[in-house]
Amino acid sequence: MGKVVILADQAENDIAKELEETAPTLDALHKLVNEDLKAVNRVILERMESPVVLISQLAGHIIASGGKRLRPMLTLATAKMCGYTGRRHIDLAACVEFIHTATLLHDDVVDESDLRRGNATANAVWGNKPSVLVGDFLFSRAFQLSVADGSLSVLDILASTSAALAEGEVMQLVTSNDTETSEDAYLDVITAKTATLFSAACRLGGLVAEKSSQEQDALASFGLNLGISYQLVDDALDYSAMEKDLGKSIGDDFRDGKITLPILLAFRRGNEFERNFWKRTMEIGEQDEKDFDTALEFITKHNALADSFERARHYGSVAKDALGLFKDSPEKHALKDVVNFCINRSH
Amino acid sequence: MGKVVILADQAENDIAKELEETAPTLDALHKLVNEDLKAVNRVILERMESPVVLISQLAGHIIASGGKRLRPMLTLATAKMCGYTGRRHIDLAACVEFIHTATLLHDDVVDESDLRRGNATANAVWGNKPSVLVGDFLFSRAFQLSVADGSLSVLDILASTSAALAEGEVMQLVTSNDTETSEDAYLDVITAKTATLFSAACRLGGLVAEKSSQEQDALASFGLNLGISYQLVDDALDYSAMEKDLGKSIGDDFRDGKITLPILLAFRRGNEFERNFWKRTMEIGEQDEKDFDTALEFITKHNALADSFERARHYGSVAKDALGLFKDSPEKHALKDVVNFCINRSH
Repeated sequence: MGKVVILADQAENDIAKELEETAPTLDALHKLVNEDLKAVNRVILERMESPVVLISQLAGHIIASGGKRLRPMLTLATAKMCGYTGRRHIDLAACVEFIHTATLLHDDVVDESDLRRGNATANAVWGNKPSVLVGDFLFSRAFQLSVADGSLSVLDILASTSAALAEGEVMQLVTSNDTETSEDAYLDVITAKTATLFSAACRLGGLVAEKSSQEQDALASFGLNLGISYQLVDDALDYSAMEKDLGKSIGDDFRDGKITLPILLAFRRGNEFERNFWKRTMEIGEQDEKDFDTALEFITKHNALADSFERARHYGSVAKDALGLFKDSPEKHALKDVVNFCINRSH
Repeated sequence: MGKVVILADQAENDIAKELEETAPTLDALHKLVNEDLKAVNRVILERMESPVVLISQLAGHIIASGGKRLRPMLTLATAKMCGYTGRRHIDLAACVEFIHTATLLHDDVVDESDLRRGNATANAVWGNKPSVLVGDFLFSRAFQLSVADGSLSVLDILASTSAALAEGEVMQLVTSNDTETSEDAYLDVITAKTATLFSAACRLGGLVAEKSSQEQDALASFGLNLGISYQLVDDALDYSAMEKDLGKSIGDDFRDGKITLPILLAFRRGNEFERNFWKRTMEIGEQDEKDFDTALEFITKHNALADSFERARHYGSVAKDALGLFKDSPEKHALKDVVNFCINRSH
């Protein structure tokens, strides 16, 4: 295994170095939207309540382990950057988080995942059945919250986003295990299943502030490209030897036969022998315990991981440029930092 | 088995007799809304399309096997009864059917069903994963269709209905296998999971026709009570020996340990020996091949099936009286026939 880790380490060293140099965090963003985020969390807690105790329990579990609230923070920060001083962005941010949480619940059922961010998934604790149904409940709550906001433009954005999310998830299922998936098809999947919600989250900030359609489009473009780079990095981190050194779990996508960019590139750049390896492990699903190390070796050999991060940087640059229309502000800086954070994060 | 069937047959004979006397059908309703229903089917076909082929395939399968389009017909007929001459009811009826179809997909996953109306379920053909995701997609399509209609009142109804549906499904999961479920808790479940959508379907007809809130409430009440009686009969038919004679599959709820009214009544009216039988078969889930016949015997002994139909008749009467506000019309007659059909149907 020695050689593999050394090769992988070399590819990772550059990233680790860059990470140390810039060390971007979400701290600035957190600080700017802190009060609003507390209000969002209150709405979330209030609206996930139900007389059916299991709903509140399960929803509480997934919302607590759902992560860093990145998507609602984007709504809060974009609204603030646009000078909005009202309260609509609070409920809409909660709405975005509910949609995200509903998809997480269904994702974990579909992926048969047992762990999310080191915590047991809802389906692991309560089984698939309530996870499917509470996902539906949270989605309906998002629907209710957006209706209560009362703007058809908002509803239109969220309805289209929801349809795109579901389409993206099905697309991912279809391309799963297909080593000949094209990079474009992969991009379509991550755009639909991840980037559209980032995009909607950002557009909503401009919409409540009644910004021009050009400015709203710019925010949507920022979110879309940020979302693509976020998912590219997420998929790459599942093959990151650096993660392995940090004791984090990697290789889930490999074991599931999920075709992501590192595999896609390694397959296309590989020789006949390597392609047969990918077909056996990813398509036929025959894997032994040495295979993941071999996968890392091939990925490193073809620079597939480093190039995945490179692609992420490309979309990150587009995202930052999309903010060019807006004048300098602490929020604009914080939003650019989100891009840096997403690209350089190690988790 | 002889005795059991004879006892069950006796209970069923009254119903069979009544069925022959009245023999209510959906024919009048079909005839009245036929053209509109064709338009609804066109909207459904058009809106279930997706560039992702699997979505169209799976959605087509469930929509084709989804049954008699009762819910959208209710929207069409109530709108017509209220003198509505526009086109909004078409899209809204399609919307109601999409919500219904989405819940069917998720239900079949949750119930691990292989058959629906004699056809293979989507989860049996394609697996659980696409069924969950295409359910999400269809629900999003319903969301989009209702946003396109543009009325916040409509959106409010559909969003609350969706949340109630999901709550009802989770409630059902929680009460499943619990023989001590109260009749009220059971009623709450069937109201939430079935009757609220019937109610919304009917209210929408009055809403597009801009009827007074009293008239809209009357339509909602008609739908709610119709929905309760529909589900009561549905649950009773799963223990109907008449069904068995017709060669139809019965006993699914028993095998799943699903607590419905016939069981609930038989349990409460039963002696210690019988209660132990219900606990073993429904709670612990230990069943042998003779148990279903014993279950039918106990149900018949306590008149539990006949009384389930009696309860259904009660809600059916309330439903019919709810239409009292509306002047006589072919649509009003057809809607009353729906009540008779739901109560006396054998499938």
